[in-house]
Amino acid sequence: MSLLVVGSVAFDCIETPHGFAEDVVGGSAVYFAVTASFFAPVKVVAIVGEDFGERQMRVFSHRPIDIEGIERVPGKTFRWRGKYRADDMANAQTLDTQLNVFENFSPKIPASYLDSAYLFLGNIHPTLQLHVREQLPACRLVALDTMNYWIKGTPEELKKTLAAVDLLVINEGEARMLSGTDNLRRSAAAILKMGPRTLVIKRGEFGACLFQGDSIFFAPGYPLEQVHDPTGAGDTFAGGFMGHLARSGDHSEASLRRALVYGSVMASFAVEEFGLHRLLRLTPKEIDARYREFKSMTHFDV
Amino acid sequence: MSLLVVGSVAFDCIETPHGFAEDVVGGSAVYFAVTASFFAPVKVVAIVGEDFGERQMRVFSHRPIDIEGIERVPGKTFRWRGKYRADDMANAQTLDTQLNVFENFSPKIPASYLDSAYLFLGNIHPTLQLHVREQLPACRLVALDTMNYWIKGTPEELKKTLAAVDLLVINEGEARMLSGTDNLRRSAAAILKMGPRTLVIKRGEFGACLFQGDSIFFAPGYPLEQVHDPTGAGDTFAGGFMGHLARSGDHSEASLRRALVYGSVMASFAVEEFGLHRLLRLTPKEIDARYREFKSMTHFDV
Repeated sequence: MSLLVVGSVAFDCIETPHGFAEDVVGGSAVYFAVTASFFAPVKVVAIVGEDFGERQMRVFSHRPIDIEGIERVPGKTFRWRGKYRADDMANAQTLDTQLNVFENFSPKIPASYLDSAYLFLGNIHPTLQLHVREQLPACRLVALDTMNYWIKGTPEELKKTLAAVDLLVINEGEARMLSGTDNLRRSAAAILKMGPRTLVIKRGEFGACLFQGDSIFFAPGYPLEQVHDPTGAGDTFAGGFMGHLARSGDHSEASLRRALVYGSVMASFAVEEFGLHRLLRLTPKEIDARYREFKSMTHFDV
Repeated sequence: MSLLVVGSVAFDCIETPHGFAEDVVGGSAVYFAVTASFFAPVKVVAIVGEDFGERQMRVFSHRPIDIEGIERVPGKTFRWRGKYRADDMANAQTLDTQLNVFENFSPKIPASYLDSAYLFLGNIHPTLQLHVREQLPACRLVALDTMNYWIKGTPEELKKTLAAVDLLVINEGEARMLSGTDNLRRSAAAILKMGPRTLVIKRGEFGACLFQGDSIFFAPGYPLEQVHDPTGAGDTFAGGFMGHLARSGDHSEASLRRALVYGSVMASFAVEEFGLHRLLRLTPKEIDARYREFKSMTHFDV
């Protein structure tokens, strides 16, 4: 079943202890779409400037990614410059942000996208997220990403959006801020009362967990020998998670657990190389092998 | 099969955001022995002063714990005073340490202990640990705990001891210091070259992992709604781990994985209340139920 993502397309400048990359294609919608396209057809809603040409568009080529919803307008594409320090690879230091055409992004959903069964609302203003969500009332599952900026800056708008989605994907720091508690279990319980039936909390190298009703599921982080570039890991995680759901059409808890592992698998590949490099040359066989590795790393007998 | 522990017996004064306890019985050998005794008979080698009387000894009563090896000498028992802050429950601030009789502790192994099949060398001077290890050459499995103090202060002595044991149990910060690398996987590989065939790294609320050859196993931390007192969690973990091995007599990787989960189970109970309280009223039925909970929190289909 098809999957719609709304998010950013960007040029990233990235520095990590293992190298740097200038003006590489990035943004939440890109990482998400490339990742999810391994599992199911993806439709993208985003905005780019005139500097985002055919060459850049090639990241979407030869994959089941529909780019009709990528609007090109006069001006420059969103630009982000960030740096990761060896002692804190989990958190980027933002050195520069130029919103450019993204500043006035008002997502336009092409008519051909309106029957999408799955929707991922990337990290944009919660009111825009809600507006998109309302245009797809028949969606089977709507998932939301957000960040500290909106939790602090637009809490009322975010609350309304949260009440209108099925699933929230955030990191542990954001979960603490949103819930007002440091304790994982109480934090999750508080957030599940805000609307979403399912909550995914990402814990960086410590993995991810899934909360639904009284049930909790943990997946570890994949133990890489080296993280080259964490940029896009969160959106890649979401792409693997939603991709699995869209491919299977199954929202049972067992399937949500598998989705969490696929999200972890995909994120573990993304950070192995700079930018999109690893994802662009990834194969389904590699995905399956790492999924089985997650199983072997967590299995024990009762 | 019987299990021997060498470690400390102490009076602890503990302050956490949830309360405080004055002069409660603690120490690595105590937490370990009480925990492991749920699984197998335990023999304790430790030292106490004259202030450690019959009343205090009662923590060992009505359990398969042999206290012949607890030496009572003139002077005062080891005393520790520590505090945990709400924003850092994982790390105790030590407010006061009085080694007292523990300062000149030279472990004496009673003749009746020499056939112990399993040995846990609690966190004491590595040369003392080695000396004990050498007195039990026929031991089936020897496990070692250590800490930053010895890693920094007596690295050569520690290396010799590491080369003489089967298994090392340390926390992630200690593993980094010992290996000289921050990366979990490379850190583990470096430590496995130092001698132990098996390595357990404890990650506090993020769980624990087991390394052996190329195999890695992860168990999550149990998601408690509140941690009342983390004191003794590490020794309790080791007690559950070694207790399972001694009970089963099975050192296969599958059994080591179960041991890691039993360690996690026991540690999760220990921190629910102050000092030994929770462990002293724990039942085997509760242990089994939580073990199954760990399974349900980590299971997914391939």
